[in-house]
Amino acid sequence: MSDKVVLAEKLALFSDHYAPRTVAEFNGHDIMVVKVEGPYHWHVHEDTDDFFLVLKVQLDIELRDRTVSLGPGELFVVPKGVEHRPVAREEVHLLLIEPTGTPNSGDPATAAPRRVV
Amino acid sequence: MSDKVVLAEKLALFSDHYAPRTVAEFNGHDIMVVKVEGPYHWHVHEDTDDFFLVLKVQLDIELRDRTVSLGPGELFVVPKGVEHRPVAREEVHLLLIEPTGTPNSGDPATAAPRRVV
Repeated sequence: MSDKVVLAEKLALFSDHYAPRTVAEFNGHDIMVVKVEGPYHWHVHEDTDDFFLVLKVQLDIELRDRTVSLGPGELFVVPKGVEHRPVAREEVHLLLIEPTGTPNSGDPATAAPRRVV
Repeated sequence: MSDKVVLAEKLALFSDHYAPRTVAEFNGHDIMVVKVEGPYHWHVHEDTDDFFLVLKVQLDIELRDRTVSLGPGELFVVPKGVEHRPVAREEVHLLLIEPTGTPNSGDPATAAPRRVV
């Protein structure tokens, strides 16, 4: 059985952006940490909700009709099928949850590879 | 579509222990906050993993062969079928994730009712 996950220790292992690291598995989902900075691109997950919990600083999740601004200790679930674009004005640390194998970009051709730390 | 969830605001809405509040839904799961204090009882979820993220103070998750001690920003996934007992030496705040309808006690007869805040 895996051990506990210290999120800060996992985040200290890498520095690249928009490249999630899987830190635990849960009911067929990957629990991931990620560092993001700058705007991502508009994308959609047709088959899954998308869980964001901000650990550090501030993330804007742009939706087509509004922007959800999240600070530390704030979470948002983008429902499946809803277009969204994360925008980070400085480096942001996040906890993400998606089904294992979900392309982070919404498209397997452009998705970051699955990396377990 | 639901709005963002500010965990501290949700936690300020109640004071009872071992009575999770659902704050968001995600792929058939409830995202919950809970306050716990003292020992819970030994139980098992035969059909689901059990996600714990400590938001405040320190939680011991006793397993039959060891104890996992979690501080803030630390998480642990109890695999399905594994007996466990949470023990909180003072009031602890947690983020929990379980499939909607999962009895928190492992037994529908003793489970806390589902409450959405």
